[in-house]
Amino acid sequence: MIIITRPDITDAELDHIRERIEAVGLHTHLSRGEKRTIIGCIGDESLLQELPLRSIPGVENVLAVLKPYKLASREFSVNRSIVRVGASAAIGGQELVVIAGPCSVENRGMLRETADAVRGSGARILRGGAFKPRSSPYSFQGLGREALALLADVRAEYGLPVVTEVLDTRDVDLVAEHADMLQVGARNMQNYALLSELGRVQRPVLLKRGLSATISELLMAAEYIMAHGNRQVVLCERGIRTFERATRNTLDVSAIPVLQRETHLPVIVDPSHAGGDAALVAPLAFAAIAAGADGLIVEVHPSPEDALSDGDQSLDIPAFDALMQRLPAFAAAAGRALTLDGTTALAGAAVA
Amino acid sequence: MIIITRPDITDAELDHIRERIEAVGLHTHLSRGEKRTIIGCIGDESLLQELPLRSIPGVENVLAVLKPYKLASREFSVNRSIVRVGASAAIGGQELVVIAGPCSVENRGMLRETADAVRGSGARILRGGAFKPRSSPYSFQGLGREALALLADVRAEYGLPVVTEVLDTRDVDLVAEHADMLQVGARNMQNYALLSELGRVQRPVLLKRGLSATISELLMAAEYIMAHGNRQVVLCERGIRTFERATRNTLDVSAIPVLQRETHLPVIVDPSHAGGDAALVAPLAFAAIAAGADGLIVEVHPSPEDALSDGDQSLDIPAFDALMQRLPAFAAAAGRALTLDGTTALAGAAVA
Amino acid sequence: MIIITRPDITDAELDHIRERIEAVGLHTHLSRGEKRTIIGCIGDESLLQELPLRSIPGVENVLAVLKPYKLASREFSVNRSIVRVGASAAIGGQELVVIAGPCSVENRGMLRETADAVRGSGARILRGGAFKPRSSPYSFQGLGREALALLADVRAEYGLPVVTEVLDTRDVDLVAEHADMLQVGARNMQNYALLSELGRVQRPVLLKRGLSATISELLMAAEYIMAHGNRQVVLCERGIRTFERATRNTLDVSAIPVLQRETHLPVIVDPSHAGGDAALVAPLAFAAIAAGADGLIVEVHPSPEDALSDGDQSLDIPAFDALMQRLPAFAAAAGRALTLDGTTALAGAAVA
Amino acid sequence: MIIITRPDITDAELDHIRERIEAVGLHTHLSRGEKRTIIGCIGDESLLQELPLRSIPGVENVLAVLKPYKLASREFSVNRSIVRVGASAAIGGQELVVIAGPCSVENRGMLRETADAVRGSGARILRGGAFKPRSSPYSFQGLGREALALLADVRAEYGLPVVTEVLDTRDVDLVAEHADMLQVGARNMQNYALLSELGRVQRPVLLKRGLSATISELLMAAEYIMAHGNRQVVLCERGIRTFERATRNTLDVSAIPVLQRETHLPVIVDPSHAGGDAALVAPLAFAAIAAGADGLIVEVHPSPEDALSDGDQSLDIPAFDALMQRLPAFAAAAGRALTLDGTTALAGAAVA
Repeated sequence: MIIITRPDITDAELDHIRERIEAVGLHTHLSRGEKRTIIGCIGDESLLQELPLRSIPGVENVLAVLKPYKLASREFSVNRSIVRVGASAAIGGQELVVIAGPCSVENRGMLRETADAVRGSGARILRGGAFKPRSSPYSFQGLGREALALLADVRAEYGLPVVTEVLDTRDVDLVAEHADMLQVGARNMQNYALLSELGRVQRPVLLKRGLSATISELLMAAEYIMAHGNRQVVLCERGIRTFERATRNTLDVSAIPVLQRETHLPVIVDPSHAGGDAALVAPLAFAAIAAGADGLIVEVHPSPEDALSDGDQSLDIPAFDALMQRLPAFAAAAGRALTLDGTTALAGAAVA
Repeated sequence: MIIITRPDITDAELDHIRERIEAVGLHTHLSRGEKRTIIGCIGDESLLQELPLRSIPGVENVLAVLKPYKLASREFSVNRSIVRVGASAAIGGQELVVIAGPCSVENRGMLRETADAVRGSGARILRGGAFKPRSSPYSFQGLGREALALLADVRAEYGLPVVTEVLDTRDVDLVAEHADMLQVGARNMQNYALLSELGRVQRPVLLKRGLSATISELLMAAEYIMAHGNRQVVLCERGIRTFERATRNTLDVSAIPVLQRETHLPVIVDPSHAGGDAALVAPLAFAAIAAGADGLIVEVHPSPEDALSDGDQSLDIPAFDALMQRLPAFAAAAGRALTLDGTTALAGAAVA
Repeated sequence: MIIITRPDITDAELDHIRERIEAVGLHTHLSRGEKRTIIGCIGDESLLQELPLRSIPGVENVLAVLKPYKLASREFSVNRSIVRVGASAAIGGQELVVIAGPCSVENRGMLRETADAVRGSGARILRGGAFKPRSSPYSFQGLGREALALLADVRAEYGLPVVTEVLDTRDVDLVAEHADMLQVGARNMQNYALLSELGRVQRPVLLKRGLSATISELLMAAEYIMAHGNRQVVLCERGIRTFERATRNTLDVSAIPVLQRETHLPVIVDPSHAGGDAALVAPLAFAAIAAGADGLIVEVHPSPEDALSDGDQSLDIPAFDALMQRLPAFAAAAGRALTLDGTTALAGAAVA
Repeated sequence: MIIITRPDITDAELDHIRERIEAVGLHTHLSRGEKRTIIGCIGDESLLQELPLRSIPGVENVLAVLKPYKLASREFSVNRSIVRVGASAAIGGQELVVIAGPCSVENRGMLRETADAVRGSGARILRGGAFKPRSSPYSFQGLGREALALLADVRAEYGLPVVTEVLDTRDVDLVAEHADMLQVGARNMQNYALLSELGRVQRPVLLKRGLSATISELLMAAEYIMAHGNRQVVLCERGIRTFERATRNTLDVSAIPVLQRETHLPVIVDPSHAGGDAALVAPLAFAAIAAGADGLIVEVHPSPEDALSDGDQSLDIPAFDALMQRLPAFAAAAGRALTLDGTTALAGAAVA
């Protein structure tokens, strides 16, 4: 932490600032410039986190030297993390992983049809919403427990691990019983009660970036889960909110290389929510892989115009298959692999 | 709902769109322009909410005619709502209400000292955090249940109703037992599980606008609480996230008159979080009242530089008193009242 | 300037960084922390402005200690600047100044009618566009030279100084001949050719903040004009672009106190463009004055629904008069004055 | 244009609205819904552009049916436009085009060295700034005329067409004499005087998107140039301003497919300014091509740490060559070509 003092600081104020810092166990180091004196704080910067340094008289500005995340940081783990999902999928390795499925689980038939199709096209994990965070209380809220049971059945039938969103701390154990991976939605990225609870289960978590969360805040949300005991976190860039309204959100494709520099955790991209438009899914998916993403999560519905949620941005089955056919070339250009046949990413792992 | 069709739409596509709309119970009305045919949908627009109209072939754009909120809308209630908090406060009437207190309840002494001081300066409701949503898992997370007990004690001692934040659906009943008003923080504005749960208790809710929530989304969050049975909602503008970093957030002062046009619910402003800087609290508080806010919520701490959270933006006791002394002139200019002595806003109500 | 080095920096890299800094004439000062070595640069920080420090191997981050603006900074001038406009107006003093008039000068009749009315209501400066920056090439582009002549005539007739926008470096001298103050529109805030040219005339400049300009960038735009020789700059907050679309722009009311801390230049507010809606002009004007603005610029049209530009946000004459009647109470609450009768803000100054 | 009326509209108000619309030559068409009456305006919507419809009593909202751009729109030209630059380059065809060179022309030696290197690596057009829009008046402002002469010399020597920025309407003819393509920088995207002037020269224009310009506004800026007579416009996405500060700007990669849907004009991407960091240039360039861009513009400097501007984001010569080696695989995956040897994109065109 570096403290920049006001030009008119008094010696007494300077001494007081130093005392406050030294009282929590750091050393201070003065550097007197022509216009400002700068106080360097040497030691464990996290000890200063609780100190409202800007409110101390004489302080003009406070600049952080270190990043606030630890377990999530690149310095914590030299190797990139690989997060295994179910028996057959692993995110973060050389092989890219595509997660696909309907926004909401609507009934058994559509879920089976979608699972069968996306597996055939090369998806490795099935997505499907049971509890839906809808902006209107009058909209379809998901089938809840019934959907969880359907997901578990279809998982067994097709051998695809499943990921589904959890909205409520009270549902974490229930969802963890039925799903291989638990999703935190964008609107809950800073729901700290939920993040803490997810730190206590041993299930991989798919953590979506909040609509206006900085990359640093996304990593701090991951840090919450990790600090509470669960290190299996996959980050998901899904578009941020900007002034532009031609698309539902603005895919922050730069976040992919920035995250790879800052963290060892895998990073996937959701091109469906980013663009909010089925016609944009393919170009955004290509861009994500080109920029180095470890995978994708794509909304697929057998009949988007009949979907109970997110139909506007869902691909139908042929469109998803067409997308998948084009991905391996982008993966190869990016120095990665994407295998479309039934061979799994995990050497020797068997798909049921 | 108005549907704008593509220039190259076929008659079969046009018929299909009309059939889909009529199937849910609305009438359609065609208007053939020079370049586009427009389909007006006549009837209960909410029936179309589930229909992914943009995904139907031939549709170029879909424009909503009506607002998605009902219970929260100005049309639902001709009169502005007044939300009573505890026995002695009412938000939304002619008299403005100031809520003040520490970011976090740190111990009994500081809470009593602050309560005593802010009541003396004219605050009508005491704020104090028990469960704190901190961006770092390593920061002080609040005293939890212990803080709730302290708040209840101080409420009894000083006769000030209290408001405190609830983070977890599992804590709603507990918090409702100890507090007069439950706060939903900005990061939980779209935590629908929490909003639904708050709809089931009969306690007023202070609903803070999310960092990147539109005014319409704020009203939809209120709608969630109201649709689940609790109509006592007070909205709070607390700054939105923009590109500007000279301030922690950007106070959207325009939201005050826009909300007053759109909803019957009271609107207060949090100048402490908006600016994130004690020096900005007063000018932002003045601006809020000038623009028509129904009240303020202000962070006050006996010694900001020792605060365990938000010290940078907390006023000390003399600064809060100085702020309060200046508010009545702005209230009067805005055609409202702000009484600083012990007389309460509710005729005949007694402050213990 | 403070340079934070990478954890794995070599001694040779460290030496190289120091040499680069010392080569431009500053001293360096090392502070070795537990994880990072920090290099403080002591001396004239502006000498480092040209140096791409981040591109030097071993550099992780570069933090500025000083602000990039000098002439515009609060440190440059202890006293707040007062900018005189024409013979009868002065912005930045105790008395607030209201500028009013039509978006565009449409013809002599409407300009005379508006000038007469706004002067009668207490406005001190007349605004009126001659060259209009319209987002469509097919929209009315202003009357150009003809409008300048009309403005000059009306100025003489009513004794009101006039402000009008200049869009093209080639028009600066022409506009300066006809107007008392030259406006730089939001879209030209970083048109450096225009700013430089305005530095060469001795006319006050009304510099509007760009739609996505930070406060620091606004001050750097003022610095351009000042560094080229013209110190008569008035800043104007007119709303920034954010994700919110309920209003045309988001009035950044916090910018007012922040600018007053950072600069000695006067700051006025444009509530017409900020909200983009006539119904929002009054509450935003009140908020601006409450937050400490030195004045307002308001669009007024005798018949907004017939206006050739910005009719949606223009006040008609009775609405402007009603607004003016309410302003003195807010000015007084803010510790300022706003005199509505013919007495000018400048003691002893005569209105022609 | 569709007009939504207020629920309490009177018949007289409704008649008045219709009269206003019909007075400019359109027909109106009423659609009475349960809560609102909607007025459809049939005819040439552009005639309504000047009418401040929202300010007419009884109007609640106004929704545009058609896009405001005409010449730039996809409907105007069925075929995608190809813009030829100099004798040897063409942007918008099957072959992708890479523009490369230094931010600023600093001297003859560095310009020759860069031109030679980037040509050898496969760039088709040389960039180099003569007039620099710097945010500080104290920074290097470019060599101006001297740089134009150097660009013209190097163009002749290496047979590379050159693109350079023009800042001032007074310089348009001069720059057009020396350069093959004129660039409008992001900060001048809505400098309508400059856009109009560029409409009068017959030189291709590289139009960069403004920091906070919507896609629609970018197209309206192109429309300005086109409506004034110059149809050779290439659009450039170079990052927009958002809340995220981990990168200098946020590359809006979605803008590429959206622009291709909306316009026939070519679209290239500037990964250097988007990320503001040399380390991000490659992943953003890959993403841009994957999303369908027609080319790239990349900053290259023989020694970035000695660059007089933008050194932080400039690639050195080996890094640029390494980038180019990887691009053809992405181009091929995207169904395009990028030829690195001396063969030009124009069949039969000869490189001097």
